[in-house]
Amino acid sequence: MTFPCVAIVGMGQIGGSLGMALLRRRLTRCVIGIDRDARALRKARARGACTETSRDLRASARADLVVLAVPVRAILALAPRAARLLRPGALLTDTGSTKAAVARAFRPFPGAVPGHPMCGTEKPGIDAADPEIFRGAPWVLTRRAPRLEHLVRALGARPVLMTSAAHDREAALVSHLPYAVALWLSRRAGPDPPLAAGSFRSATRVAAQPAAMGADILLTNPFPLARELETMAAGLRRLASALRRGNVAAVKRFVKEGCR
Amino acid sequence: MTFPCVAIVGMGQIGGSLGMALLRRRLTRCVIGIDRDARALRKARARGACTETSRDLRASARADLVVLAVPVRAILALAPRAARLLRPGALLTDTGSTKAAVARAFRPFPGAVPGHPMCGTEKPGIDAADPEIFRGAPWVLTRRAPRLEHLVRALGARPVLMTSAAHDREAALVSHLPYAVALWLSRRAGPDPPLAAGSFRSATRVAAQPAAMGADILLTNPFPLARELETMAAGLRRLASALRRGNVAAVKRFVKEGCR
Repeated sequence: MTFPCVAIVGMGQIGGSLGMALLRRRLTRCVIGIDRDARALRKARARGACTETSRDLRASARADLVVLAVPVRAILALAPRAARLLRPGALLTDTGSTKAAVARAFRPFPGAVPGHPMCGTEKPGIDAADPEIFRGAPWVLTRRAPRLEHLVRALGARPVLMTSAAHDREAALVSHLPYAVALWLSRRAGPDPPLAAGSFRSATRVAAQPAAMGADILLTNPFPLARELETMAAGLRRLASALRRGNVAAVKRFVKEGCR
Repeated sequence: MTFPCVAIVGMGQIGGSLGMALLRRRLTRCVIGIDRDARALRKARARGACTETSRDLRASARADLVVLAVPVRAILALAPRAARLLRPGALLTDTGSTKAAVARAFRPFPGAVPGHPMCGTEKPGIDAADPEIFRGAPWVLTRRAPRLEHLVRALGARPVLMTSAAHDREAALVSHLPYAVALWLSRRAGPDPPLAAGSFRSATRVAAQPAAMGADILLTNPFPLARELETMAAGLRRLASALRRGNVAAVKRFVKEGCR
């Protein structure tokens, strides 16, 4: 057993799923669920996401692995204190959606490994936890950490080692840009547009993710995301111009190049 | 029985689904499946999507209702001949994703009613047909046609009467824009981006729709779609600029206004 005791800070969808997966797969013996919200803690315990609960970060001092599973800017705020509480030989990691800012906050602490399991749905909180969400998902780590890679594999996920800058560039395109587009579409169309069908629902699904989490993602990946937004804006304007000019060949090319 | 015999031109996902739904719900006695593709016709018959088949549009002359379920520009090309083949009292309709061009093509023919069932998936052809896809879906009609509205309801769909211009404006936003975005994202990310998770898959799902169908949609709704593309491009550029300037309040507002 690599980590006999794990503390998870944030009993939301990801933290709760992780606790459930660790306990069900018997990858640890003890999960300390830490959250400010007493109701989330009660639910987490009832769902089998932790074996004990606390509202105090200091409870993490006993753990062999501490996982910060809160919105990115909360990770940044908690990181120094969580790192100082670590007992010798213990590791600190996180599940935040952007990695450069977390990597900067973790840098002073050798046992701190930025991580990002790329899974989860738009649904918030412990009610949406599911121990199977990690199966097959990429789980980015931006520092080598054999014990953590081993755990990630044991959870059914796929460790991907990359720099925080590369992660944030790639995530800006495949995750944060689709999220920004979903927000924009959902605002432009208003609630319950009468002709909304499958393509609209697919494109706006992630707009339902909690606003505080979403804002943290955009705000902690500003430049890679701004670049993707501008590149997409230019691409959409080129298509608009081809449509206005009746440039059939250009429109067909746009479709053909994007058709999967 | 409002339409004892229905001819469906195009045994793809929508045409096939319609034939299956009509026959299973006993809304007609005879469905003539018409397609250029003999293999699609054999499959359609095997799946219970039609009771007879033909590769010749003239087979529609016996029908009480003729449905053109082919890509939009093929609808435009077939419309005059299909309308002239109609027997007295029969109706002609279509399932095309844009309506202004179809409405112009149908205008000379009093029995021709432009229609759009807003359902279906990105998967192509008769293999993807499903008689339940109409359930709860909006089905736009741009002319009053009580017999057709009755049939739409009997299929479990919801008739929505609106002008072809209003349809195309609204569909540009809720359907064609998400499709264009999906194409753009899927091309920009390339095949199998390593960090792609749920938000990317949702946002690009519809990019898999057959290219010929997709190009027809964009090309027959050029101005409403160009306007939506330009509006979105401006919105994305504003967000990019807020991110670059570190305007936390503007980024939070963007998230809050789009959060569903």
